[in-house]
Amino acid sequence: MSPNQTPRPVQRPAQTPRTAPDSARRSQRSRRAIYDAALALVVEVGYPRTTIEGIAARAGVGKQTIYRWWPSKADVLLEAFLDLAEQAAQAAASDGQQPQGIPDTGDLAADLRLVLRATVDELRDPAFEAPSRALAAEGVVNEELGRRFVAQLLEPQLQLYVERLRSAQEAGEVRPDVDPRIALELFVAPLAQRWLQYSGPISYEYTDTLVDYALHGIAPR
Amino acid sequence: MSPNQTPRPVQRPAQTPRTAPDSARRSQRSRRAIYDAALALVVEVGYPRTTIEGIAARAGVGKQTIYRWWPSKADVLLEAFLDLAEQAAQAAASDGQQPQGIPDTGDLAADLRLVLRATVDELRDPAFEAPSRALAAEGVVNEELGRRFVAQLLEPQLQLYVERLRSAQEAGEVRPDVDPRIALELFVAPLAQRWLQYSGPISYEYTDTLVDYALHGIAPR
Repeated sequence: MSPNQTPRPVQRPAQTPRTAPDSARRSQRSRRAIYDAALALVVEVGYPRTTIEGIAARAGVGKQTIYRWWPSKADVLLEAFLDLAEQAAQAAASDGQQPQGIPDTGDLAADLRLVLRATVDELRDPAFEAPSRALAAEGVVNEELGRRFVAQLLEPQLQLYVERLRSAQEAGEVRPDVDPRIALELFVAPLAQRWLQYSGPISYEYTDTLVDYALHGIAPR
Repeated sequence: MSPNQTPRPVQRPAQTPRTAPDSARRSQRSRRAIYDAALALVVEVGYPRTTIEGIAARAGVGKQTIYRWWPSKADVLLEAFLDLAEQAAQAAASDGQQPQGIPDTGDLAADLRLVLRATVDELRDPAFEAPSRALAAEGVVNEELGRRFVAQLLEPQLQLYVERLRSAQEAGEVRPDVDPRIALELFVAPLAQRWLQYSGPISYEYTDTLVDYALHGIAPR
């Protein structure tokens, strides 16, 4: 998953059909097969050559099943991605390792360090890496997909940072004149760029440093 | 050109063959035709389907001409890109609009604001946008190309910021314990991410704000 998609989504794709239990289970199985097929295909052949037909064939469902639930392949993929992120969040939560969302212990620096360290761990998760990169790469050259990616995946995550920074402003830990939506980029974007562009190594020490510089600046205090 | 490739390169691809003037002129014309063809193709068909044969056909040269100068299509494209950046730098310099490299007036904030505003202008230059995006997108999913892109195009540009920040450290404008290679990412990476991922609007006001937050932090002073 892209660094900017961490912390994990608290929203879930709430589209489970309200039908009888057996039918719901079958639907759930089909849905999972469709997500898996979509993510695998975008990695193997790229976004432009991933088709609803191809996803249907690989998932072992009829393509009408897919069209019944999603209007386009972009919708299938983005939802498959949200689901992937949610699975990871649930797995991490059941490990007791990482919090959902951004903690608010009253110590902004500590909370940000924790979340960014968790992001570093996720960026090393091979289950996320290939589909994240495939989708992110397509978004760079396909503005329509890029903007959906942002609206559905990235921005909801960034808003969690906005909320945490607003709470820090109320607590006097961040200046009141700071725009939280820009401020979060000081630590989120460098990590995203290093990961996306292979422009530098990623480590806990690196993200701790970003938090320190973002909070206190690089000029003499 | 990607935001992280500004300020403009001061290096130039110094590969003009040392032959008689007429031959040198012909070589220069072929070289320019090859660059143009390579950049056009990567935009039209994408990096994977851009081939040396295709570049040669479009440029009206034999493919041996290309192989004599470059070992691979990646080398052609990266050099075409360096050349594109240099042309833009020369055009801007002759307009008297923008400085080459990063100015050092003794006022770090003013110098960074100026360079980042120039980058904003470049990001809106249609001649750069499509090939920059095509190459950046491929680098996201093609680690080998991504790392060349960084080594040949991005890192030399970032090193200009490193030098400027070192000079600011000597002048007491940046704390001596700050790592300039990380510090520069606070203002370069957010702009790069907004541009690459369509994750937010780009303006002078935005980059001025990044410079302010990076220098002074977001915590109370």
